[in-house]
Amino acid sequence: MADDTTKTPVCVLGLGLIGGSVLRAAAAAGREVFGYNRSADGVNAAVADGFDATTDLQGALTRAAAAGALIVIAVPLPPLPTLLAEIARLAPQCPLTDATSVKGPVLEMVVAAGLADRFVGGHPMAGTVHSGWPAGDATLFVGAPWVISVDDQVDPAVFATVLDLILDCGSVAVPARSDEHDAAAAVISHLPHLLAEALAVTAADVPLAFGLAAGSFRDGTRVAGTAPELVLAMCEGNWLRLLPALDRAIELLSGARDALSASDSIAELVNQGHAARTRYENFPRSEIIAVVVGADGWRAELAAAGRAGGVIRAALPTLDSSR
Amino acid sequence: MADDTTKTPVCVLGLGLIGGSVLRAAAAAGREVFGYNRSADGVNAAVADGFDATTDLQGALTRAAAAGALIVIAVPLPPLPTLLAEIARLAPQCPLTDATSVKGPVLEMVVAAGLADRFVGGHPMAGTVHSGWPAGDATLFVGAPWVISVDDQVDPAVFATVLDLILDCGSVAVPARSDEHDAAAAVISHLPHLLAEALAVTAADVPLAFGLAAGSFRDGTRVAGTAPELVLAMCEGNWLRLLPALDRAIELLSGARDALSASDSIAELVNQGHAARTRYENFPRSEIIAVVVGADGWRAELAAAGRAGGVIRAALPTLDSSR
Repeated sequence: MADDTTKTPVCVLGLGLIGGSVLRAAAAAGREVFGYNRSADGVNAAVADGFDATTDLQGALTRAAAAGALIVIAVPLPPLPTLLAEIARLAPQCPLTDATSVKGPVLEMVVAAGLADRFVGGHPMAGTVHSGWPAGDATLFVGAPWVISVDDQVDPAVFATVLDLILDCGSVAVPARSDEHDAAAAVISHLPHLLAEALAVTAADVPLAFGLAAGSFRDGTRVAGTAPELVLAMCEGNWLRLLPALDRAIELLSGARDALSASDSIAELVNQGHAARTRYENFPRSEIIAVVVGADGWRAELAAAGRAGGVIRAALPTLDSSR
Repeated sequence: MADDTTKTPVCVLGLGLIGGSVLRAAAAAGREVFGYNRSADGVNAAVADGFDATTDLQGALTRAAAAGALIVIAVPLPPLPTLLAEIARLAPQCPLTDATSVKGPVLEMVVAAGLADRFVGGHPMAGTVHSGWPAGDATLFVGAPWVISVDDQVDPAVFATVLDLILDCGSVAVPARSDEHDAAAAVISHLPHLLAEALAVTAADVPLAFGLAAGSFRDGTRVAGTAPELVLAMCEGNWLRLLPALDRAIELLSGARDALSASDSIAELVNQGHAARTRYENFPRSEIIAVVVGADGWRAELAAAGRAGGVIRAALPTLDSSR
């Protein structure tokens, strides 16, 4: 497919499951795309699949600066400060986003690197238990929520550029502040991983358990199949928000434990859980269409709309275009 | 379909999801089938679907006695003593099984009713979050494990009769002692329900959580959609086995909590969980073919085989037929 020259080029740093899928999806949308990966394995696999990829970070960033590309950071937290320092040195004017599962710590690192005014954080809420370039898929994000940051420092033009990529990937964008995202991610993503690990470990000690296991156990332990290093990075990177969630879950389970032990009913937990799941199943989705990006209070307005179940399915008007 | 007169007729007591599915599957296998249900709603729905069903318990049991039918108990624990007393009065010679999710308490009730020598407990490990006759399906059990009891009192002929029904339903039979079944059910079925309830309740308090929830949360809370009364009956009926499982899970989660709080790594839980899930995914299944039902030590031999991942896919030789 010929590149669409009206679209911002995309430079993806890190070609694992998420980065590799972003590269494929952006290419499928007709964009000029190129990628960097630290290990040659990922680069070779991407090149073999017909993509433009390199292990030369400086080269990729110099090219991004020349092309005015949107840089997408898709690496875990540990190498991030080094990567950000290189971006600040070689491509400080490029619009910048990321696909990391914790947003607060990333924002702190971006601020420390002096890149805050070009950065709009992101987090696609999609994945599989597999990892690496071969696991990627241009359709991984289709229909999935993709968080786009509306923190105080967010620039309207960069926001619009990042939103455009999210929509090109087939996702619905959910505007959120980084702190609220991290608190939500703790309960909907990180806590489920810990519960799944605990369930798998508990069952492993009981003879006959694996022989009888059916749907409840399979579903309840599915995410325990995720590579341990990814789970550790997610959970430990968001420990501040994960702690109260874990405390609450332990409190609920301990209450049930005490009730069972005293031959009391566990109806309170079970009824509340059923009610919560039912509310989740019926959670109302609405489309955000009226907010003007760049207008007074637009970030707070988008954060409130996202909190209420709003998603962005098409480009929003910007202050310039709405004049 | 004309009834297969070489097959034992089946009388199902309780026409909810499980009982209704057994009735349909046994009919599809060509058997003479009839059912009883306490509420007229279930009976009317079954009759409307072309099945032979009644609210007249005495009538159903008298007919079962005359036909030498296999009686399948598919009601929850609370009404069981009353039902067993009626069976003892009207159809004490019929082979008897059940489909209840806890096997120890049922066996105690059966012993108390004087029916132990005609009883072989069962538990099909299949289900959906829906309940009642309309949710039933002749194919619900296809490929699913179905526990068949090999407790000390189990009679070889009744065992063979119950096994025949399990295979007719398309299930694979897993032989197990009732106490071992209940310990396994606690960790693979009952604990997952409590973890799902706790996860749903924890997330419900966090703004943005439902808006961002994706696969991890959906899978992790799926069984919280089960009707609360069914969850209560399962968990409270098996409280003795559920308690140590719940204690273990809380201990593992509390360890992770303390590690996170002290900025230590939660690698131990995460690595163990991943290893356990991997072992589950690769759990070896083998087919039990050589055990002769009724031969010396056959029950212990089947219990050991079931524990090791063995399943029964076809009728086993019996002492008579193997002579």
